[in-house]
Amino acid sequence: MNREIARMTWKEFEEAKRTKTLIIPVGSLEQHGYHLPMETDVIISSGLAKVLAEKIDGIVAPPVNYGYKSQPNSGGGPLFPGTVDLNGDTLVRLVYDMLCEFARDGVKKIFISNGHFENEAFLVEAVDLATRQYDIHVVLASWWDQIPSDMVEKCFEEVPFPGWALEHAAVTETSMVMYFTPELVHMDRFVEEEFRKPGLYHDYPIKPGIVPASGVLATARTSSRGKGALLVESITDAYAGICREAFKSYDDTL
Amino acid sequence: MNREIARMTWKEFEEAKRTKTLIIPVGSLEQHGYHLPMETDVIISSGLAKVLAEKIDGIVAPPVNYGYKSQPNSGGGPLFPGTVDLNGDTLVRLVYDMLCEFARDGVKKIFISNGHFENEAFLVEAVDLATRQYDIHVVLASWWDQIPSDMVEKCFEEVPFPGWALEHAAVTETSMVMYFTPELVHMDRFVEEEFRKPGLYHDYPIKPGIVPASGVLATARTSSRGKGALLVESITDAYAGICREAFKSYDDTL
Amino acid sequence: MNREIARMTWKEFEEAKRTKTLIIPVGSLEQHGYHLPMETDVIISSGLAKVLAEKIDGIVAPPVNYGYKSQPNSGGGPLFPGTVDLNGDTLVRLVYDMLCEFARDGVKKIFISNGHFENEAFLVEAVDLATRQYDIHVVLASWWDQIPSDMVEKCFEEVPFPGWALEHAAVTETSMVMYFTPELVHMDRFVEEEFRKPGLYHDYPIKPGIVPASGVLATARTSSRGKGALLVESITDAYAGICREAFKSYDDTL
Amino acid sequence: MNREIARMTWKEFEEAKRTKTLIIPVGSLEQHGYHLPMETDVIISSGLAKVLAEKIDGIVAPPVNYGYKSQPNSGGGPLFPGTVDLNGDTLVRLVYDMLCEFARDGVKKIFISNGHFENEAFLVEAVDLATRQYDIHVVLASWWDQIPSDMVEKCFEEVPFPGWALEHAAVTETSMVMYFTPELVHMDRFVEEEFRKPGLYHDYPIKPGIVPASGVLATARTSSRGKGALLVESITDAYAGICREAFKSYDDTL
Amino acid sequence: MNREIARMTWKEFEEAKRTKTLIIPVGSLEQHGYHLPMETDVIISSGLAKVLAEKIDGIVAPPVNYGYKSQPNSGGGPLFPGTVDLNGDTLVRLVYDMLCEFARDGVKKIFISNGHFENEAFLVEAVDLATRQYDIHVVLASWWDQIPSDMVEKCFEEVPFPGWALEHAAVTETSMVMYFTPELVHMDRFVEEEFRKPGLYHDYPIKPGIVPASGVLATARTSSRGKGALLVESITDAYAGICREAFKSYDDTL
Amino acid sequence: MNREIARMTWKEFEEAKRTKTLIIPVGSLEQHGYHLPMETDVIISSGLAKVLAEKIDGIVAPPVNYGYKSQPNSGGGPLFPGTVDLNGDTLVRLVYDMLCEFARDGVKKIFISNGHFENEAFLVEAVDLATRQYDIHVVLASWWDQIPSDMVEKCFEEVPFPGWALEHAAVTETSMVMYFTPELVHMDRFVEEEFRKPGLYHDYPIKPGIVPASGVLATARTSSRGKGALLVESITDAYAGICREAFKSYDDTL
Repeated sequence: MNREIARMTWKEFEEAKRTKTLIIPVGSLEQHGYHLPMETDVIISSGLAKVLAEKIDGIVAPPVNYGYKSQPNSGGGPLFPGTVDLNGDTLVRLVYDMLCEFARDGVKKIFISNGHFENEAFLVEAVDLATRQYDIHVVLASWWDQIPSDMVEKCFEEVPFPGWALEHAAVTETSMVMYFTPELVHMDRFVEEEFRKPGLYHDYPIKPGIVPASGVLATARTSSRGKGALLVESITDAYAGICREAFKSYDDTL
Repeated sequence: MNREIARMTWKEFEEAKRTKTLIIPVGSLEQHGYHLPMETDVIISSGLAKVLAEKIDGIVAPPVNYGYKSQPNSGGGPLFPGTVDLNGDTLVRLVYDMLCEFARDGVKKIFISNGHFENEAFLVEAVDLATRQYDIHVVLASWWDQIPSDMVEKCFEEVPFPGWALEHAAVTETSMVMYFTPELVHMDRFVEEEFRKPGLYHDYPIKPGIVPASGVLATARTSSRGKGALLVESITDAYAGICREAFKSYDDTL
Repeated sequence: MNREIARMTWKEFEEAKRTKTLIIPVGSLEQHGYHLPMETDVIISSGLAKVLAEKIDGIVAPPVNYGYKSQPNSGGGPLFPGTVDLNGDTLVRLVYDMLCEFARDGVKKIFISNGHFENEAFLVEAVDLATRQYDIHVVLASWWDQIPSDMVEKCFEEVPFPGWALEHAAVTETSMVMYFTPELVHMDRFVEEEFRKPGLYHDYPIKPGIVPASGVLATARTSSRGKGALLVESITDAYAGICREAFKSYDDTL
Repeated sequence: MNREIARMTWKEFEEAKRTKTLIIPVGSLEQHGYHLPMETDVIISSGLAKVLAEKIDGIVAPPVNYGYKSQPNSGGGPLFPGTVDLNGDTLVRLVYDMLCEFARDGVKKIFISNGHFENEAFLVEAVDLATRQYDIHVVLASWWDQIPSDMVEKCFEEVPFPGWALEHAAVTETSMVMYFTPELVHMDRFVEEEFRKPGLYHDYPIKPGIVPASGVLATARTSSRGKGALLVESITDAYAGICREAFKSYDDTL
Repeated sequence: MNREIARMTWKEFEEAKRTKTLIIPVGSLEQHGYHLPMETDVIISSGLAKVLAEKIDGIVAPPVNYGYKSQPNSGGGPLFPGTVDLNGDTLVRLVYDMLCEFARDGVKKIFISNGHFENEAFLVEAVDLATRQYDIHVVLASWWDQIPSDMVEKCFEEVPFPGWALEHAAVTETSMVMYFTPELVHMDRFVEEEFRKPGLYHDYPIKPGIVPASGVLATARTSSRGKGALLVESITDAYAGICREAFKSYDDTL
Repeated sequence: MNREIARMTWKEFEEAKRTKTLIIPVGSLEQHGYHLPMETDVIISSGLAKVLAEKIDGIVAPPVNYGYKSQPNSGGGPLFPGTVDLNGDTLVRLVYDMLCEFARDGVKKIFISNGHFENEAFLVEAVDLATRQYDIHVVLASWWDQIPSDMVEKCFEEVPFPGWALEHAAVTETSMVMYFTPELVHMDRFVEEEFRKPGLYHDYPIKPGIVPASGVLATARTSSRGKGALLVESITDAYAGICREAFKSYDDTL
């Protein structure tokens, strides 16, 4: 069954929107090392959205392909070519407009699947502004917040867990891209570098040379498709649980 | 050869951006009748972008998936479910930010492939603002402006040409979606309705019932994949010619 | 009878606003060749507004004297001195504020008489935003969309019709300025140049030399005051018909 | 000699802009009692601009016809029909865009002739922002600041001077409209009311009944065309002196 | 009794907000001559707020520490180090957000105590926008508008009164800072300069040298703590009267 | 020695700004349980700023007293009275304007001391925008990121560490307010409640009842002034180290 509204006719969407939760993937176009594609955050947020849609009988909106500014401590920063950094207000307005439009269409339950670390605060702002304006229920979640500690241990048996901000183009992201689009992962190009500790402050203007040359913030060496499958299963289970909890009041009325 | 920058690593993009024209497809999420998917404008703008990229050795950015407000006289308007209408300023800021970021990355030649009628003025505004700010050369074109009169005649042998604003979900769009993604066209659902003449003014607030029930503004009955192939060839030839003309000064220096 | 609200006292306006349609002319300050004044778009939009007001017993607001950015393909572009190009968002906000204020004053029926090609999309945006906010009925029309084909034939007996975008400072505009303010037309300064075909794409930054030196996009040689009179009559008849059709529901209640 | 750039061709403006000061009148559409037209502030600011242009060999731009929000203590406030109140940011952007455009055209010396009390701070903001961006010299003046005390005494021989904020539709404005457009003054409709003292604070939301029923804030009874002539002469002399002083450094170079 | 909400717990504020008027001081960070601290406008607006709070049993919000752009004719202008000039729109949005938030909290009566001349128009704009959106009653007053002529005479026995715009770091401000924070006044550093007459127009870009070197616009020599005490008493009496008058309708209901 | 620029004259600031780092405290007005004042985030960010200023010979700007929207998972959220939530764009513009102004004043080194969890992303945005515009070096740090694990252990000997987002009005904040302003801490009012685990997603609109009734997110019972002293020492040592590292290139030149 097709769950992507982009591929539906409007009549199909009209039927689906009455009862189903709409999942909006939000990614970015951002460097992800020598071995991962620049749309990694779109692949993961969209991939998770589609698996979640199966689990909760939901539908999936077209992804937001561009996101907020990459930062050295969590994404490598703006100095890598191809990283397209939207201003904060631009992302807020884009997602705000989308939410308001879906609300005017009669959608009631929206789940935002965020795949880019730096997006979060601006997505919260868009959600806050839209839910003040329209009677719509919106949940926003990022995948790295959903991984229980036993799953972290499984993913980081061989290497220490560096913290989520540094998991950029590292084990978890690489494993999930291996799961969703293996043809786009080039492990042969991965270079083990000396990874520095996370910065504890923001230093602007951003200077070259403060992240490893590849743009990877922690090792991806121990990535595997199997870990990707485990992560996807675990995250989407958590997402499904959130949806059931958050949207439970709609079960009776819709 | 992969020409989509989303699927490149940043190193691949770094190499490509030096000499190649970057093509940005801009679409919308909008009703396209009972027989076409809501992402029709993304399919066409992206499809044309990929064919053009082959012809001029260019590269293609991730599409802008959401566009400006659909209007009754050219897209059926906002009253159809699933049509997501961005505010004008939102689209301007989004495309402005993208252009500025590509400029900061060192891209010099950008071609915007527009697939949604109502986007045009706001894309012009974004392009004007970005090219004032950065030393970047941007060309913006919409496919319906590129079709020579003999091609129009070929497409409209059986039915009269209604004018481009009304070619919404009609012969040309349907034929091109048949060409790019035939599995998403449902001609069996197409309903021949009485199509009214185009409105010569804008009447707000928009009232229900002023477009046919299906949301199609002119007949799609005579669409065919063959016509789609002819259109795609003709349009991308014109686009390639525009690029050669507009960007010729770069041939020597890059 | 005075129909310009600028020249009314507020008590006169208070009386008039209850039942009458308010007509807002929107123009620009823009080059119009060697032979026409820079306020040509104000002269035409205001002139048509006053004739229309007589026909429908309407009232006329002060004109918007400055408009959106002139483009090479439809107005000669920004490189001619005296062309004052507002940013799109500025025009949207200005007209939005005006519409909201008239709505708060209790005006119900507004007709926007647009005289500048490039204004249109931004006027639509202002109208859309204001009519979402207030219970007001707004119609927006541009004069070139109202001219029936037999009238086009009459105006272009001697020279071919170049399309409306190119009718900048050409036969139709010149003839109407001859009708409204003949003292401002300098046909002796008109220079017949080689007029190029319309551009089919937007190329930024805008380069000098792509329009004829005079700024005129198609010949004005065959202009006449008689043609101006015919055009004004035909356009305002069409406008009056639009008002009767669009605002008919108010006839009973007001 | 025509000094209004709206009525010039662009070639005439091109010649004039090299050396001449450009004067921009800014007014409003605002109630001015039972006896004055709503465009009073446009009439005065434009009228003064034209007289000033003669004195300094300057040129005059089309007026800004709509201004900032009328306030009870200085203009009667928003509750009178026909008073169109722009948001502050709208007026700032409009005048900012105009100044930037004239700067890009090569204009060097601009004089803003303000005729609406409440506009001033927002005009200052527009001027500040534009002069940071472009190398342009802008002077902003309001007529009521230019009247020497002996002139005040002459105008207020019969009635006490209420202060400039309250001179709304009162002796000075009425006298100047009598001078510029006598046919628009209806002294027979003027009603002597009890005028209250000026408010010393702002109280929002604005309540009805705090200004006299006519909207006039101080008596206009002793107005005369002769006083208007004296005022116009005195104010434009002061304006001319300001221009000579402020723009003196350009005399040598231009 | 503590009247500053910053120092209350939220439970204390919850109790207080039901019946008490909330006073918001708005100041600036701005040069005030060789002898006064840069936070002079915060000291005065906050000091008056606290005395007023005692008189009307009100509560005081944290001050707005930064204000609108200092101008040569009223504050010395931007060329003095330490003067931090917010853009107009920034101040409007800040105060607008604050007012809306207090309104959502259930506050009904707000008094804005303004201490910076140039803030006023932008505070009015914020108040107007917020009171359109929420059912809240806001009064805005500046201290210099509250001083009766006999008090002016007492303060200016020895030196002429220069008008309020020029009373920058002069007798009245210095006397009140002497009253509130005497330890921050350095009369030994005060330099008697030649003070020029107030400018009657705005001249941009602002040039150095048009105000005295110290940044003081009129003499502060005759300042005294006693005058400060008189001024504070007189101003807060006037403020208390305004509150009683403006908010009297709440006495019965709250 | 006075290090607060608000209390300096502009001449004192002019001298100081040449070589010293300017520290800007950013707080919020937000509920902090039954036992802490609403200005807790201002007290801590300003208090740390002053101690840091001593350590690095810096100067301190007036605090930003209002911050970004409180969220249930990190501050209790907007439903508690007295919590004043600025829109994201408002905070960005305010801090952006301040940074640009200090840059124009010639300040080179700025350290932002953030005391409110939800501010961070919007401060980053302001810093990014300002440092693109002006040649200024800005470091932004939040105190909770500076506490080494041994210090965490010392503070949480008796109770488990709940994570920084939940340390709202809990042990660390309470201890530091005890250190800076002991008279404002009311431990007798502290109520031990059942504290829930942190939310792993954002759920809008925010519903009542999802945080404990007091607004405290983790226990404050074991707070002490001694812990406060240790924390302040440790954090400001870390801040001083950051300044030395980040601004070391200025040591030679200034």
